[in-house]
Amino acid sequence: MNNETLLLCEAQILTMTEEHPQPFVGWVGVVGNRIALVTDSSSEAERFRAENPSCRTIDCRDRVLMPGLVNTHCHVAMTLQRNYADDIPLMEWLNDHIWPFEAQQTPDEVALGAELGIVEMLLGGVTSFVDMYWDENRIADSAEKLGIRALLCPSCLDSNMENFERDLEALLPKCNDRVRAGVGPHAPYTVSKENLLRVKALAEKHRLPMTIHVAETQAEMESVMQTTGMRPVEWLDSLGLLNERLIAAHCVYVDEKDRATLRERGVKIAHNPTSNMKIASGISPIEKCLEEGLNPTIGTDGPCSNNDLDMWEEMRNTSFLAKVSSMNPLVLPADEVLRMATVYGAEAIGHGGELGIVKEGALADLILIDIQKPHLQPVNNLVADLVYCCKSSDVETVIVDGRVVVENRCLAGVDLPDLYRRATAAVERIRKAML
Amino acid sequence: MNNETLLLCEAQILTMTEEHPQPFVGWVGVVGNRIALVTDSSSEAERFRAENPSCRTIDCRDRVLMPGLVNTHCHVAMTLQRNYADDIPLMEWLNDHIWPFEAQQTPDEVALGAELGIVEMLLGGVTSFVDMYWDENRIADSAEKLGIRALLCPSCLDSNMENFERDLEALLPKCNDRVRAGVGPHAPYTVSKENLLRVKALAEKHRLPMTIHVAETQAEMESVMQTTGMRPVEWLDSLGLLNERLIAAHCVYVDEKDRATLRERGVKIAHNPTSNMKIASGISPIEKCLEEGLNPTIGTDGPCSNNDLDMWEEMRNTSFLAKVSSMNPLVLPADEVLRMATVYGAEAIGHGGELGIVKEGALADLILIDIQKPHLQPVNNLVADLVYCCKSSDVETVIVDGRVVVENRCLAGVDLPDLYRRATAAVERIRKAML
Repeated sequence: MNNETLLLCEAQILTMTEEHPQPFVGWVGVVGNRIALVTDSSSEAERFRAENPSCRTIDCRDRVLMPGLVNTHCHVAMTLQRNYADDIPLMEWLNDHIWPFEAQQTPDEVALGAELGIVEMLLGGVTSFVDMYWDENRIADSAEKLGIRALLCPSCLDSNMENFERDLEALLPKCNDRVRAGVGPHAPYTVSKENLLRVKALAEKHRLPMTIHVAETQAEMESVMQTTGMRPVEWLDSLGLLNERLIAAHCVYVDEKDRATLRERGVKIAHNPTSNMKIASGISPIEKCLEEGLNPTIGTDGPCSNNDLDMWEEMRNTSFLAKVSSMNPLVLPADEVLRMATVYGAEAIGHGGELGIVKEGALADLILIDIQKPHLQPVNNLVADLVYCCKSSDVETVIVDGRVVVENRCLAGVDLPDLYRRATAAVERIRKAML
Repeated sequence: MNNETLLLCEAQILTMTEEHPQPFVGWVGVVGNRIALVTDSSSEAERFRAENPSCRTIDCRDRVLMPGLVNTHCHVAMTLQRNYADDIPLMEWLNDHIWPFEAQQTPDEVALGAELGIVEMLLGGVTSFVDMYWDENRIADSAEKLGIRALLCPSCLDSNMENFERDLEALLPKCNDRVRAGVGPHAPYTVSKENLLRVKALAEKHRLPMTIHVAETQAEMESVMQTTGMRPVEWLDSLGLLNERLIAAHCVYVDEKDRATLRERGVKIAHNPTSNMKIASGISPIEKCLEEGLNPTIGTDGPCSNNDLDMWEEMRNTSFLAKVSSMNPLVLPADEVLRMATVYGAEAIGHGGELGIVKEGALADLILIDIQKPHLQPVNNLVADLVYCCKSSDVETVIVDGRVVVENRCLAGVDLPDLYRRATAAVERIRKAML
């Protein structure tokens, strides 16, 4: 994939910047991997075209042009286990289904699951994702091949520290500005103090961001309290793990003091409402996190507890669940939810001010949405239309790092039927191996 | 639109019947408006073809064939007000936005809003809907034109009884087996005892089903208790309004005694989780309704409080909200939710045993779903795949009453861009008239 110079013409542009909060019709020019022009002036667009004679123009009339979505918590390779075991108790799900499946999964199959999940995300307008899993060095291959932006965090439990270190070592040389590495200690109740500190030292050595599951379930709260005498947030803080380079996933059980700690340390929250609902973890006080200035982000979690990787549905669940749980229809309004999925998501992955916005100089991660659909018409309020009505299938074109990776809902160079056949065959092989 | 004889070939058939609970590959023949053949035998399919030489065959390989979805609570014409006023307090929403808008709306504009909403529903696999609104006689025109199955219930408040009776009179002669009439008293707190009894008498005279909003908000509970000394369900029961031909929408605040009453009277519940979440009405104890054998159904409510007419999202919200609110991931499993949206929905609209199922002799309301999509692969469990991952945009073909109304996602004879232009122009006109 090469970067062409692009001129996106006559789109409805939603910049997600404070300078231009209202949508307007205009032109966006892309040179290399950056946005070089954002204008509502046709003569400025003409000048750009004249200065870039080989630039490719894309007609964006009746299309919304906005920043790509940032999915800040995911286990993308679990796509192979989509709908594999639903509606059963958590421990039975893990012990009898998920873990035995994963024990048989090869690194090639992890890469394959990731490929399928990344294809789904790109087609749904997700241009960046944060992942936590094993064999992230192979997920990096899939991310590199498909052109998505990724922050890949090898996961560790006390039982697999060696694998974790091997995975990270294999991942680091594959990284670049777009596909980056982090570390992903699983959770305060599955990683010992010693190992948490070991991971922290590794993160500091390589200057890596970190992600971890925090305060997801009542069972976790009880377990951490019993072991450490502290709540999970307090425990991680006492170990010096909380900082602005940490993405804390879930944060369902965070009280006022926990939230104050998270805010003071600059921790980024990845809110996962669908997963929290589906596996009955609980309801996060996300409206309080917003009010208190924590700038929370949104993630889908893995496709086993969702069961897809759809950030549009995740935005709706973010808004609707908060409204009903707080019994207040005013909380989590559409514009705030869209900011969580773009601006705040970009901040969480270390690209604040240069991603999740349409602005000259920003990274060119952009999506075009076809709003000429019955479920999106009439357009009485564009932002509410996007957050409350838009579906991943309305995303028509996706640009990541200046490259057009999806056009008219097609991914260049991806043989989808073959991908489905390979995914199905992998699941069959794994199931047989489990017997 | 004429009925052709159809042979749907080599589909993955999900019958939703107790006789054939598992999906199987097979053939479905349609003659007139009924299913004439369901078989897994290619020789039986050959015989059908020989006996119906002019029958049209449709290749359904890699497609799921299942019953169309039944949306049991809707105000379809409110599509014009989609995203018109979100994230504001309920009374401000009604007083300053919704009601002034509706006061300016012409019957032609009601028919137009209904047309857009019905197009959206058909493209999303909804083959039947229950509606409550004004000018239902004009919504009947839209339903007739587009070929959807509908139960249209003119709405009444104390303030518009005359309009209601005129609407019903105009509606009745337009009705047929597919487009039927009911009555729709708005709610126990907006319609007096006298008028509820008047509507009841009208329903009995014309042998019409009824729908009503019941126990939707805390404010309604307080209001009805104050006026009548009874809970809404008790109040309606004391007036003799509860029977097996009543669809009670919302039922958020129904206690054990209310639910026992509803079950004894055979009342059908329309559950509207998205609306209840978005406008912060509360959380219905839907898992208890299911356990107690009330066979609840699912409705989207109007597009102002949702903001679309998507039964796939409504199914997911039904399941996920119940799981988290009961803190039990086992409740509302995928197969039960799909039954609510098909089998139970069909029972609620008076077509139990002959709709919402794929069975010889049943009405031919069928949909074909393309499961060759990244977000639906691999197919580890077909029913979970449909309920937890399928989108309305995955519906490829829709058959209502034996007629193909959507094919390859196109509605024959509908000029969509023109429909969007007319809807936009109508909203502009109404907004100007409101000034």
